[in-house]
Amino acid sequence: MLLPVFLNLSGERFSVTYQIDSDKDTVHAKVQNLAIEQTVEFPPELIPDDDIKNKIIGHVESLVKIGEHTYEATISYAEEITGYELVQLLNVILGNSSLLVGIRVEQLDLSWNLLKAFKGPRFGRAGLRELLGIRDRPLLCTALKPLGSPTQTLAELAYQFALGGIDIIKDDHGLANQTFAPFFERVQNCATAVARANRETGYHCIYAPNISAPADKLFAYARFAKDYGAGALMVSPGLIGFDAMRVLADDDSIALPIIYHPTFQGFLSSGGTIGFSHFVQYGQFARLAGADASIFPNQGGRFAYTREDCIRIAEGTMTPMDSIKPIFPMPGGGMLSHQLDGLLDLYGKEFILLIGGGLHRLGPDLVENSRLFRQRMEQL
Amino acid sequence: MLLPVFLNLSGERFSVTYQIDSDKDTVHAKVQNLAIEQTVEFPPELIPDDDIKNKIIGHVESLVKIGEHTYEATISYAEEITGYELVQLLNVILGNSSLLVGIRVEQLDLSWNLLKAFKGPRFGRAGLRELLGIRDRPLLCTALKPLGSPTQTLAELAYQFALGGIDIIKDDHGLANQTFAPFFERVQNCATAVARANRETGYHCIYAPNISAPADKLFAYARFAKDYGAGALMVSPGLIGFDAMRVLADDDSIALPIIYHPTFQGFLSSGGTIGFSHFVQYGQFARLAGADASIFPNQGGRFAYTREDCIRIAEGTMTPMDSIKPIFPMPGGGMLSHQLDGLLDLYGKEFILLIGGGLHRLGPDLVENSRLFRQRMEQL
Repeated sequence: MLLPVFLNLSGERFSVTYQIDSDKDTVHAKVQNLAIEQTVEFPPELIPDDDIKNKIIGHVESLVKIGEHTYEATISYAEEITGYELVQLLNVILGNSSLLVGIRVEQLDLSWNLLKAFKGPRFGRAGLRELLGIRDRPLLCTALKPLGSPTQTLAELAYQFALGGIDIIKDDHGLANQTFAPFFERVQNCATAVARANRETGYHCIYAPNISAPADKLFAYARFAKDYGAGALMVSPGLIGFDAMRVLADDDSIALPIIYHPTFQGFLSSGGTIGFSHFVQYGQFARLAGADASIFPNQGGRFAYTREDCIRIAEGTMTPMDSIKPIFPMPGGGMLSHQLDGLLDLYGKEFILLIGGGLHRLGPDLVENSRLFRQRMEQL
Repeated sequence: MLLPVFLNLSGERFSVTYQIDSDKDTVHAKVQNLAIEQTVEFPPELIPDDDIKNKIIGHVESLVKIGEHTYEATISYAEEITGYELVQLLNVILGNSSLLVGIRVEQLDLSWNLLKAFKGPRFGRAGLRELLGIRDRPLLCTALKPLGSPTQTLAELAYQFALGGIDIIKDDHGLANQTFAPFFERVQNCATAVARANRETGYHCIYAPNISAPADKLFAYARFAKDYGAGALMVSPGLIGFDAMRVLADDDSIALPIIYHPTFQGFLSSGGTIGFSHFVQYGQFARLAGADASIFPNQGGRFAYTREDCIRIAEGTMTPMDSIKPIFPMPGGGMLSHQLDGLLDLYGKEFILLIGGGLHRLGPDLVENSRLFRQRMEQL
């Protein structure tokens, strides 16, 4: 005996634009099935209630042919089905349908109420510039590496980079809690080293440890980092979930900038018609989950991202999303110093350059190398 | 001034087998770069310490041509670089290299110490059979749906399914904390309905709510579910992270079976040479992260998984991993009753059939439909 349903869905609908690989004959069924799979997951003809059939199943708002076997479909959903929570919002956008090939999420157009449910980046571009005291040049970041180095070596590296004028010094994403440089010891020593350099230079360099702790220790790690002088946190949502990043960003007792690292998440936007566009992953998702900067592989580095990919990422970091602030694109991934000129073209001055090995290649004096990079940034 | 490193790496090495798409001319460089990218992420020629160069960078143990442009490479890593934690283990296996195409993780061969660091499934196949009192037939699971139904309807469905002899009744993966059927109300009512049916039937049916709470409420949700009579938990690590699933599985105050749902995680094994094999995702990862059963789309359903995919999944659920127990494959995804016969071929009697819409298609009497399915299971 199923009870009748009287659904009070007075909120707005939000929209998701999908790219669909399909032939003309099957595209309508494919898109309709997507609207069902992401909501009721149930044969519509067996649903007794018109309210569920008419309001809960996604509405196909448009379907446009954009290539020989490629379509663009926009589906709208009642915002209530997300419960106004990030976990379920992600699930509605591409949950079970992530198991299908030939479907990729291109763009989110979220409703006002839904956007209001998220704080988004605490700092964003303007807040991070203010924190670092840098008005109008690109920001400069490097990473402590290689894995296997003891804490004292990493702290000494941090000191030299900070002395040379690097703005943000982050852990390499593989520095976790290994015996070589355990998390608590590393954070204390590196934060102290950066503070010492700041006293000598008058700069506002910050240290961003890698928060990739076990799920039940994340907040303890983040609070420790805050208490011992970390100036930002680097988080890998591929490993710990987008929502854990959001919680760390939202926590007023931590209140540090968040740097999004894409490790273990490349499959989200691997290039085929599957998963998400770079625009959504590095831009819209990163911002909904509270990141202030989004690391991605720049064109021309070790990874196969194209110029077009990078442009779309930059757009995603600043596309209007009501009160959700724009954030910094943070290109990295094996760039060399001669590639810097192309960055202005792509990002204007609104980016954070993540330079790793390239900083070491210039010669043995890392303080001097850092100064050279900073000068380049100031001359851009 | 970098300090010398004296790395005491007395543990064993563990191995990861990758499939690599490459030409003959570039394959050696590609595999060597993979071994670097997953560890030091740094130009080896700039590393002053031989210990880091020789012990931290992955060792290419073998490289075999298996197709015209396809190779199989095995890389071994020092177990210490994982910190013996799941988050960093996943990161070493395919962190940054998830951003590359043409690399897929095929299989893990973990060292004894590393496996010992994980409890794995609390119940596994044998424990779940004992809990449900079912010795030698396949298990039967269905889902409460559709999204939009009020709590009373879902509880009534749960009652009817349990009365008809379904073994496990789970939330649909889209049931979160929406106003239609809020989490706490739903869990209480559905667990109570299943308990009432069990008193009438003498069966041991269990209810598995969907634990897809915000990251800071996961444990509160799981403990509530435990306290109010849930018999298992369904978890989607694509949304909350594999390690959060592990923590829920490991918690002795919860101590419930864990059902792994692959929503928002299809891109992990999307079929191309990227991400992971089904064997690793649904088998080895699920078990390391404490799942007792692994939901995946069976061949012939709404998703494009092949017979070969399903065989590899089944193998992954039981391949020897020292003390990490074998778990149940849980094929679902739009199967119809006439497809049941093929399941024995694929899985023997060691599977949990997840039947959703198919249970409703048989007619309006859900108790009777459930009885029919149970009879089919008993006759297999």
